[in-house]
Order: sequence, then structure tokens, then C-alpha cells
Amino acid sequence: MQSLAPFLHPNGIVFVGATDKEGSVGRAIVENLLNFEGRLFFINPKRNEVLGHPCLQSIDQIDQPVDLAVIAIKAEYVPQTLIDLGKKKIQSVIIISAGFKEAGQEGIELENRILKIAKDYHIRIIGPNCLGVMSPYSNMNATFAKTMALAGGVGFISQSGAMCTSMLDYANDIGVGFSAFISVGSMSDIEFKDCIEYLANDPKTHTIFLYMETIGDTNGFIRICQKASFKKPIIAIKPGRSEAARKAAASHTGSLVGSDTAVEAIFDKGHVLRADTMEEFFDLFTFYALEEIPLGDRIGIITNAGGMGVLTTDAIEVNGAKALAPIDVLGDATELDYIKAWDELKDTHSIDALIVIASPQSMTDFVKIAEFTTQIKGKIPVCASFVGKKQTLEGEQVLKKQLIPHYPTPDRAAKVLTRVIGLKKKIEKAMQIPSLLDQPLPKKIRLPETHGRTLLTEYESKSLLEKSGLPVVKTLLASTEEEAILAAQQIGFPCVVKLNSTTITHKSDVGGVKLNLQSVEEVANAFRDMELNIRKGFEGVTVQKMSNLKGSIELLFGMILDPTSGPLISFGSGGIAVELYKDVVFAIPPLSMEEALDLFEKTKIDHALTGYRNLGPIDKKALAKFFSAFSSFIASMPEIEELDINPIIANKNEIVILDARIVLKSH
Amino acid sequence: MQSLAPFLHPNGIVFVGATDKEGSVGRAIVENLLNFEGRLFFINPKRNEVLGHPCLQSIDQIDQPVDLAVIAIKAEYVPQTLIDLGKKKIQSVIIISAGFKEAGQEGIELENRILKIAKDYHIRIIGPNCLGVMSPYSNMNATFAKTMALAGGVGFISQSGAMCTSMLDYANDIGVGFSAFISVGSMSDIEFKDCIEYLANDPKTHTIFLYMETIGDTNGFIRICQKASFKKPIIAIKPGRSEAARKAAASHTGSLVGSDTAVEAIFDKGHVLRADTMEEFFDLFTFYALEEIPLGDRIGIITNAGGMGVLTTDAIEVNGAKALAPIDVLGDATELDYIKAWDELKDTHSIDALIVIASPQSMTDFVKIAEFTTQIKGKIPVCASFVGKKQTLEGEQVLKKQLIPHYPTPDRAAKVLTRVIGLKKKIEKAMQIPSLLDQPLPKKIRLPETHGRTLLTEYESKSLLEKSGLPVVKTLLASTEEEAILAAQQIGFPCVVKLNSTTITHKSDVGGVKLNLQSVEEVANAFRDMELNIRKGFEGVTVQKMSNLKGSIELLFGMILDPTSGPLISFGSGGIAVELYKDVVFAIPPLSMEEALDLFEKTKIDHALTGYRNLGPIDKKALAKFFSAFSSFIASMPEIEELDINPIIANKNEIVILDARIVLKSH
Repeated sequence: MQSLAPFLHPNGIVFVGATDKEGSVGRAIVENLLNFEGRLFFINPKRNEVLGHPCLQSIDQIDQPVDLAVIAIKAEYVPQTLIDLGKKKIQSVIIISAGFKEAGQEGIELENRILKIAKDYHIRIIGPNCLGVMSPYSNMNATFAKTMALAGGVGFISQSGAMCTSMLDYANDIGVGFSAFISVGSMSDIEFKDCIEYLANDPKTHTIFLYMETIGDTNGFIRICQKASFKKPIIAIKPGRSEAARKAAASHTGSLVGSDTAVEAIFDKGHVLRADTMEEFFDLFTFYALEEIPLGDRIGIITNAGGMGVLTTDAIEVNGAKALAPIDVLGDATELDYIKAWDELKDTHSIDALIVIASPQSMTDFVKIAEFTTQIKGKIPVCASFVGKKQTLEGEQVLKKQLIPHYPTPDRAAKVLTRVIGLKKKIEKAMQIPSLLDQPLPKKIRLPETHGRTLLTEYESKSLLEKSGLPVVKTLLASTEEEAILAAQQIGFPCVVKLNSTTITHKSDVGGVKLNLQSVEEVANAFRDMELNIRKGFEGVTVQKMSNLKGSIELLFGMILDPTSGPLISFGSGGIAVELYKDVVFAIPPLSMEEALDLFEKTKIDHALTGYRNLGPIDKKALAKFFSAFSSFIASMPEIEELDINPIIANKNEIVILDARIVLKSH
Repeated sequence: MQSLAPFLHPNGIVFVGATDKEGSVGRAIVENLLNFEGRLFFINPKRNEVLGHPCLQSIDQIDQPVDLAVIAIKAEYVPQTLIDLGKKKIQSVIIISAGFKEAGQEGIELENRILKIAKDYHIRIIGPNCLGVMSPYSNMNATFAKTMALAGGVGFISQSGAMCTSMLDYANDIGVGFSAFISVGSMSDIEFKDCIEYLANDPKTHTIFLYMETIGDTNGFIRICQKASFKKPIIAIKPGRSEAARKAAASHTGSLVGSDTAVEAIFDKGHVLRADTMEEFFDLFTFYALEEIPLGDRIGIITNAGGMGVLTTDAIEVNGAKALAPIDVLGDATELDYIKAWDELKDTHSIDALIVIASPQSMTDFVKIAEFTTQIKGKIPVCASFVGKKQTLEGEQVLKKQLIPHYPTPDRAAKVLTRVIGLKKKIEKAMQIPSLLDQPLPKKIRLPETHGRTLLTEYESKSLLEKSGLPVVKTLLASTEEEAILAAQQIGFPCVVKLNSTTITHKSDVGGVKLNLQSVEEVANAFRDMELNIRKGFEGVTVQKMSNLKGSIELLFGMILDPTSGPLISFGSGGIAVELYKDVVFAIPPLSMEEALDLFEKTKIDHALTGYRNLGPIDKKALAKFFSAFSSFIASMPEIEELDINPIIANKNEIVILDARIVLKSH
């Protein structure tokens, strides 16, 4: 696959659609491109010059090597332009033009045509329907935005032009620059994963920010993010949380999961930090752009306002880091008191980051406190919060000039720091665990022959799970009364007899479940009762051991297919607790044993696993191994549409699946 | 009780501690007071004039009526000054001076002295250790702050001087004014409840904001807030959330509750909106100060950035309101498109509030969009979010001038609106329900004679609850085998025999619980076993009916004493779920039936109460009546230190307490 390098560092650019028409996209791009110092060719069949610069009438007039093209012409002319570019071996193309798949059936056909041409000529495309690309280190602004990004360390990839221009305007104000600024548009070819992969290896990029409306190739995205996250932080924002809430109401299973749950699972697996709100996205941007990542989680606070110090401590601890030694320098503090406090913090505590808080009081000189803060920068990561507006302004301007992150209230500083630290910890942990994504999946297990039936019987479901290495309660099929008795004798008493049927799905409703049978007679009666009463659909019974639930923890393993993520596996409290307490967590398969243990810790039932009252402790590692095996089984079986193991029971002595239900995809 | 009117609208002010010493608190106050248009007297025994104004040497030289004094002298001289003021019948005093209870034992004694003097002379005190009081409508600035508040509709009461000056600086910047600006300091006399009561009846005040470090008289605070909230919104911020987390780890019961839980319960009962963060506090301040409260919960959005519209919808729905009809006017929109969108929203949807979002794109004119927004103001509540910084600035300034709330990201606007709407709904609902606080408590129930023992036996606990009108499972005492058999025959089989003992607290551990006894013989055996095996501490048994838990919901009623709130009652999932799923909610007693039903809805087990799988439905109203009775019982019994009813079981046929445990306060 061709590198994205020509998109960011081209040896020359051809712009198709050059014009000097006032207010047009074409003119804006011409003006922006004029700062590019490499070869530059403007194309417009009707012009000899544009804004005083020479203009060619066609692509074949280009007489020097060029490796990037930008297209901003009517959609219908794009296919021919691509062919012309292809013939010239110009294989990196940014299509600004709209009018493709977002524009209905005709647009979809047009998009398919350009993709076909791109394939034929080995052309890679950014767009269509995008703002373009900025590459500050190459002085390249191939967009129609009004302003240019500064050069810096942030790689920004956005699916929304509006988010691009807002972020750019904000970044310019705080003096933050970019290594790459890519508007991916409708991602007909190049998508997030491609850009992330490139920026992960780009030495100028230290952090990657994403605004996503769709994820694109989920598996590719996860794989690439996992690797990239070991080199630099990836931060994303993605709308759609409330869609989940709506979907949640939709269906029985849906009440536990919506597509936003899948998005969370994808980001989690890719070690991508998801900003909860736009504000947090901008706040994280400010921090990562201006400061280093703290080495540990001990945050110091110096404040001239005691209450604000406590509120900041609250925000730190609520968000999961440690507030270490907030020092209240009191209301009449001068910058000298801040310096003294810093000396104390530095000498007596080992802090990893500092928040400087100041409120306008009688002796407060914000400029001097800003200068004090500047002295800290470079020693440890620092951010400031000057709380007010009129009186704080001058001090804030000093901070801005010195590229020190400033937040109008200190809880925002606290939240950002805790999230930055949280991501760092997560990635450090993940680096210790080999990812299963790079390992081969287990051998596929043969599905039973169902002749188009999609719902497997309990016996079929359990057999499949047993073959995959999961601990299934011993269950025997019996077609006759005699076989049932033999089975029961083999299994031992008490036992359970259940209807076996490929057509009846709710066994209990038809009297198809008889629990706690103590003798051969009771088993025989159970068989005869079912045979007699359930005429249509009776295909014999299964006999299984009666498990004593007392003192056992009821758990759930599950899987659903999500439109975004594909298979999404779940773990949680089983039995009735599933839906009442919704103590269930989701993940993308496969998971290693270590990842399974981490997942367990996000549930409440985990307390029981480690021993709680008369429950547990159970062999958590064994459970995690089973869940890991289950996750690999799911990953290897794309034929499965839905799966519920509920309950799987666990106690001091055993972990065993009592019931399971598998639905296959229909062909 | 004397009104607070003289503190805010005095006929004259005497300032004790006047000086012109550079940089002193006394001089700052003199300068600030000079703008007061009523009578003004400066007192300093060593001076004839201060800053060119006459100065008296002692209080008795004052020859005209004055009803407010401000004191900023050394703490040790304050008592005599108070006596002098008392003799002059000056009975409203702001003590700025520090050096009282915050300053150790000597300070505590000094504070007690001034409180004694205040009582003798009927003097009310604000402070000590405060910034002072501003009353913009009286041109009174009796503080040492550098700037004066504008006149407006916000009443601000703060226990932190730093929060005062920050808020003031912020408010002056956005052009927001105050009806009263009170720094209550250490609240030796006048506390939050007094100020709230006054401001609730002050026609100039439309909203009350509180920064609280302590609540003061909890019951008084709740009563006054309940009443005040029906007239105007009360918004508070209070540090200490993470203390709760720490306390939580401390003890068994504590793991479910910490003092911050009590604070939440207090605010909830007083209908006080608690800001989660400082940022939210400032954001709510901006909204309430500048805009009207929406009449309903339907929020419209007009945006030139689709993604930001969706993110805003997310924020609205995550926070519990309705996002109605976000209109995306697209990236190339001008203000004309915004106007068109507004016409559409207005005509085809009935929205209660509007968020205007704009990102800097090619055609975006922020000034014109701000002017469009100005046209909406007055029609319905509106706020704006111009996302960027450099390019948005001019438009933001128009918004500021027009007093339109602006938030740098739209999710903040969304969150504020949803919280404002949420509070309004809550208060409207509360207005329909008579508060139990104004009704007499039930008659006290006589406690059993325990001779200093604080832990009641199960039988004593249940009897007490039964007398209070709660449904307790029939339980009989039996001292002999014969009595036990008679009791069992009276109750019926199966039954339970439990040890009765005032000394053994863990009955199960000593074999003191025998379940599911089916016959007279089994009861007799159970009695004999206990009598034989548990020699020390055996005081007979209790016999109760064996309840069938199957199909029943296990619930919990509880009470603990919290240092802040006093008795705090709880409701939630009983049995093992209590601590595993922590499905418990807390409230301040007493609660009406309607309030109990609202409380239930905050739990997950509520789904079971209304019928869920094989559980319920149960008679929720009956349960709520019991919980209300329980809450009144708790409110009437201050001798109780701790109480657990677990489980109380509920099913289609009955609601009954199976076990209870009461701990009394030690004398």
C-alpha cells in the first residue's frame, strides 16, 4: 500500500479547479496554495492565468514530476480528471468536491466510478466532500479554510469541516501547531486507520486527535490504534451517545447494549481516549499540545483559595487520580508565597504535576503568579487556573504567551490531568500484555446441520461450547424412556430432565423442564409426562446434573452482533440480576486472560468473585481463561449472530455452564 | 427575630477601625464605604479624620440614628466595641476581623464572649472572619474587595472570600449584577438559612447562589430552602465529594454512605440545585443571571456544524431533557439561513429554549449571527455557542453586550439548560405535595428498658417497629420448650426458631437460627439444642413464621446518623444485593408517600416493584406508606443511632419485615 507521504509532503501539487472568482472555493484554495514552496500547477480549461499566476488548460500539459493533486470541480467531471491524473502517474488525490455518496443514488454511482478508476490507476483518495489537507511543515495549505495552521506536534484528523475550522481557530489563538491537519470527508478510500498509521510513524507528530462520525474498518482501526497508542496518545470525540439510549429501548437484548456501547468497546480496545464532551476534547487538546505527560499520578495544588483547592481535590479524586498535598497559601498570598509553597512541595512530596490556582484577592498579582508558573514549566507538567475574568486577564495573557495550559476553573484542569494520567497508565499496562489480535484464532468448530434453522437447541448450543473447550454441565440426549433412565443413572441424582426440541423455544412454558429429580422413577415419569403432553415438537429429552445454586455465583457470558463493531462479547452478573442491575460489560473479542481479568473488574459481581459474604472466592484465573477461550471462539465463528450463556455458575469447586442459547445468522 | 434588612439597607453605618494606612483592610473599607449615600461615621480613637473625612474617637460620640456597624479591628478589642454598640442600640454588626474560633482555644473563648454580649444586647452578627457585605441597590460596599458589584437580581452568599472575589470579577465582566453579596465568614450567628429567608422575600432578588463549606442548622436550612425554592431557584456548590469516598472505605455501613451522601440528601430535600463543578456553578450563574427559565423541556438547536449539533443533542439527552429538532443550516450558512431555521422551528415545533451554534466557516459572520440571536432574546430563553476563539471574538462581544449567555462549547449550554429545566420540574412537582416538615410528628413510642445496653434484640427491635405501625412478621417470645411449642402451634408451620439473647449478637454463628421447622417435634428439638449448646446468653427463643422468599422481592429500610444531617434514612435492594450492587438511596426524614415513591424510582429494584419477570408487581403505594411511616418514626425517635430492616419482603400478597436491628445512642 502506498504511503500517505505525498499528501503531506508532496514534491509538487496540481490543483484542478483553479479560479479567481470572488468567494469561490477554488479561489480560496489557490490563495492558500500560493504559500507552497514546491512546484505548483493550476488547471482550468478556460484560463491562462489565475490571480496573476500561470494556469494550464489540461493535466497533460504538466511537464514536471508532481505527486499530489487537489480537485475542486463539479462532481461529474471528477472521473475524467482522475483518469487524466492516473495517466500522468499522479497517484495521491484530495477530492474537495461534494456530490458523491451523500447526494443520493446518482452520487453513489459516481463514487463507485471514481473508486474503480482509482483502483485501475493505483490512485489513493482523501475525500470526497472534505475541507482538504494542511501540512504546516511543508507550508502546504490545500484547503479552502480562511486561516492556516501553525507548525507543531498535533496530528488532527476530522470527518467534519466545521470541527476543523473551530479547532484551527482555537489552536491559532492559544498558539498551538499541527504536524498534519486532515479533513477526511466521506472517506471513500483513505480513512482514519490509514492516517493514524502514517502519523504514528511521523516523528513530528506527538499526539493524534480525531473527530469521528463513523469509524470505518473497525478491526483495522483497532489494530492500528493499539500499535500507535504505544508511541503516542490518541484522543477522539464521536457523537451518538444518545442514539444508544434510543436503541436501548428498542428490544429485549437491546436494552443492555446500543451501538455506542460498541464504540466505547472499540476505543477501549484501541487504547483511544474518548472525550466525553466537546469541552473536554478542547481541554485535552490544550493540555497535550502544550504540556508533557506526567510521569505518575500524584498531583500537587497551590491555591490562594482554600475552598477551590478542596473542589479541585474532589475533581481529581472523583476522576480517579491522587490529589497530593494541596497547599493553601491563603488569601493574602503574593507570588513569594507561591514560590515558598512550590519549594515545600518539591522538597517534601514527589509530585508529578502541578495545578496553580489563583483568585483575585487584595494582594494577588496575576502577572507575577503567571511568571512563577512559567518557572515551573519544564520542571514538571503544570497548568493554571486563574478564576475571575477582568482582573485575571493580564495574567492569563502571560500564561498564553508562555504556552502554559490555562483553564477558567480548576476542576477542568483536574479532570484533564486525571484523564491524561489514566490513559498513560492504561497504555503502560497494555504494553505488558501481548495482544491476541496478532495471534492465530483457534480452529473453527463445525456447526451442527440445521437445514436452515437458525436457533440451535440447548443441547446443540452446549455441545458447540463444549467442543470449544468451555466447561459445560454434563448433558446427555435420550430419545426413549429407557435411554433417559440410563442417562440419569450415568449422571447421578438429583438430575434435571429437559425437553429436546428443534421447534419449541420456550421449554418451561410447555412443562418441558423438570428439576431436582431424585430417582429413576421420577426421571421415567418426567419423560412420560413430556412425551404425552408435548406431542408436537417432542424429540426426546436431555438429562443433566442438578446443580446446587446455593453459594454459587450466577454469571453471564454473551455475544451480540453490533452494526458498528461486529461481534461484541459481554460478561456480568447472570440470572435475574442481568436486567435488573444491568451489571454487564462489553468488549471486542478476542481477549487475553489478563484483559478478561481487567474486564471483570469493571463489574460489581467481581467483588463476589474475590469472595464476598457466603459467595466465592472462586478461581478467577480459571474463569478468565474460560472467558478468553470464549472470546477466541466467538472471533473464529462469524456464523454466530447471538449467544447467551446464562447462567454459568461459579463456586469454590467448579465453574460450569448450565444453560446456553445460540442463534446463527440466516443465510 | 430581627430582620436582616439593616445589613443590606441601613439608615446609617458606623465603621469601627477606620484608617488611611496604605494597603490596610481598614482603608479599603473606608474607600468602599464613601460611596454610601446615608449617614456614615468612622471610628478610630487615635484620629480626627480619615482620608479627609471626619473621624470620631468613640462610639458614644455618634449623635444620629445608625443601624449597622462594621468592625475591622483586632479581635481582642471586638467585645468592648460590641458592648459600646449595644448601648447605642446598634444591633446589626458585620465583623470583618479574624482571630476567633478559627484561631484555636483563645479565639473560641473570644467568640463565646462576643456571642454572649450579642445575646445580651440583641445584636445580630455577620462574620467574623469575612469579606463583608455589598448591597448594590443601597450603594453600600461594606467589604475590603477591590471592586463593587453591579446592581442586579442575584443574591450571592458565600463562606469563602476567594469565591466572592472570583465571582464578582466574573460577574462584572459579563455585566451581571447582585441584589446582595454576603460573605458570611465563620457564621457565628447569621448563617445561610437566615440570608436565604431574607432574600426569598426580597423582591429585587430573582435567584440565590450559595458557596457553602458547612451547612449550619440542617433542619432550618431545609425548611427555609423548601419554602424559598417555591419563589426563586437556589443553586449551591459545596466541596467535599471526595471526603465521602474516603469515609466510604472506613466502615461496613459507611461503605454505603458518607457525609457527602447526606449533603446530597439535604440539597435534594431543600430543592437546592447542586453544581457538580465550579465550572457548572459559573455556567449556571451565567444562565440564571442573564436569561429566563424555560417553560418546558423542549430545546431547539440551530447549527452550521452538523456534528456539533449531534454532540449537543447527546449532551441534552444524557442530562435528561429533550432535544427537539436540531436544524443543521450547513457550513455555507449565513445569518439569513439562521433566521429561516428559526422561522421553521417557531412555526412547526413548540420549543421552550434555543441553542445557537456557529463554527467559523467560509460564509460565517459571527456578528450577524449574534445579532440574529439578539432578536430571539425575549421571545424564548436563548443561549449561544460560537466555537473557536479568534474569529468568534467579535460576535461573542455582541452577545456579551446584549446579555446573551455564551458558552465556548455547546455541550455546556446543553448541560446548563437541562439542569435549569430539571430544577424547575422538580419544584413544580414538589409544590403539589404538602411537605411533612410542617406537620406534627407521630407520638413517640416508648423504648424497652435496656439498662444501658444499646443494641436491641431482634425481638425488641421488631416490637418497636410493630408499635410504629410497620408490618412485622408475627414473632412470639418463648422462655420454655412448652411456650415454644405453643407459640409454634399458634403461628403455624413451617416456622423459624431463633435464639433470644441480649448478649449474643451473631445468632447464626452459635447455631441460634433454625429454619423451616415442620412440626412440634422439630420446634422442641430446636429449643432443646439451643438451651443445651448455648449456655451463656440463652434467654429463651423467638418463634416466627417461615416466609417463602421465592417470588418475593427483598428490600431494605435503614437509618444511620450522619454528622451533617442527623438521621439519614435509606431504601434499596435488600439481601446480598445491598452491598454487592449498592442499589440504595438516601433521604432526610420525614417523607410523604409521594416523596417515598419518588425515592423508590431512583433505585433499580423499583423495576421489580412494578413487576419484572417472576417478581412483583407489588402494592407500591402500600410500600410507600410504610416507608413514609418509617420515616416519621425515625424523625420522632432521636434516641436511635442506627437501624437496619433487612430484609423486608414484598410480593403480590404481602409486605412484611423479617428481620430488624436497632442500635440506640449511648447516654
